[in-house]
Amino acid sequence: MNLEEAYERVKPKLKPARFEHTKRVVETAVELAEAYGEDIEKTKIAAAFHDYAKYRDVEEMKRWIIKETALPKDLLLYHHELWHGPVGAYLVRVEHDVMDTDILSAITYHTTGHANMTLLEKIVFLADYIEPGRSFPGVDEVRKVAKEDLNQGCYLALRNTIQFLMSKGQTIYPDTFHAYNDFARLLNK
Amino acid sequence: MNLEEAYERVKPKLKPARFEHTKRVVETAVELAEAYGEDIEKTKIAAAFHDYAKYRDVEEMKRWIIKETALPKDLLLYHHELWHGPVGAYLVRVEHDVMDTDILSAITYHTTGHANMTLLEKIVFLADYIEPGRSFPGVDEVRKVAKEDLNQGCYLALRNTIQFLMSKGQTIYPDTFHAYNDFARLLNK
Repeated sequence: MNLEEAYERVKPKLKPARFEHTKRVVETAVELAEAYGEDIEKTKIAAAFHDYAKYRDVEEMKRWIIKETALPKDLLLYHHELWHGPVGAYLVRVEHDVMDTDILSAITYHTTGHANMTLLEKIVFLADYIEPGRSFPGVDEVRKVAKEDLNQGCYLALRNTIQFLMSKGQTIYPDTFHAYNDFARLLNK
Repeated sequence: MNLEEAYERVKPKLKPARFEHTKRVVETAVELAEAYGEDIEKTKIAAAFHDYAKYRDVEEMKRWIIKETALPKDLLLYHHELWHGPVGAYLVRVEHDVMDTDILSAITYHTTGHANMTLLEKIVFLADYIEPGRSFPGVDEVRKVAKEDLNQGCYLALRNTIQFLMSKGQTIYPDTFHAYNDFARLLNK
């Protein structure tokens, strides 16, 4: 599957503004892939599909999480905003025959992160955070750092995300904490 | 064992300033125990012994963590400042025959917290955070809230602690994250 085909499959599933966001994530992810040596075609497909399940009905996503062995059940204890990554990877596999585990894991973890992220996971996670349409406190610093040090960029994005969620009294998905700890440990060594 | 006996056993293990801190933690913990209905004698013993292992040699604590089945090995991956709670509970049990699991768990978790904290664990954790000798940003708010809502007090103390550690780029022990999530979930319901 090439990028045009991926867009054809993703576009009907997204609101127009979200599809524009997706195209910016693809562009940003390709820039990072070129800078850090990831496969460009894989990067395009992963980024194109990252929000595939963004507008799936919450009850449908809940049914998939309950039914599919590979989907972690503890997602149900956390905000449904976190479900579209893992459920999206599952649906991209069964509805579009994407079998590349690098691509699927980058879709799975693009919102939460997790410990021991792969290069492609880091790229899609960070591209989603810093694409040019994003504007929130601290994003310019992360954009700058992302060009110099991918791990430092991920660290800052995770730290900002946790601090933002905590400022609103929200729970934090454990994978996000583990990702933060992982990068904090890596960067302090 | 009464409080005077506990102090006799703890005092030789602590620097003078730390022993003064301990006495203030006991007083604060007793106030919280009276307010929230915990056993006063248990509270005194738990608070008196909470920092029992504070000045144990780091290498000795490491040996206990490696050797003792009940001590979680993942402590070794985190800052040694976190070790004196779990190691302290172990030493208080074997060196002073304190067998009350309520008391031992309050010593174990007084620095990190964990999910599903008991009343006594909350009291010692929070007393250690708000005793009158403490002065750091946000402590007065936690002192005020602690009198009105023990869970909200623990929530704020955990949130402040995580934010402080993250601002320094430090890792966060998973139990602390789980404790934060637990209180955030409880208070949002």
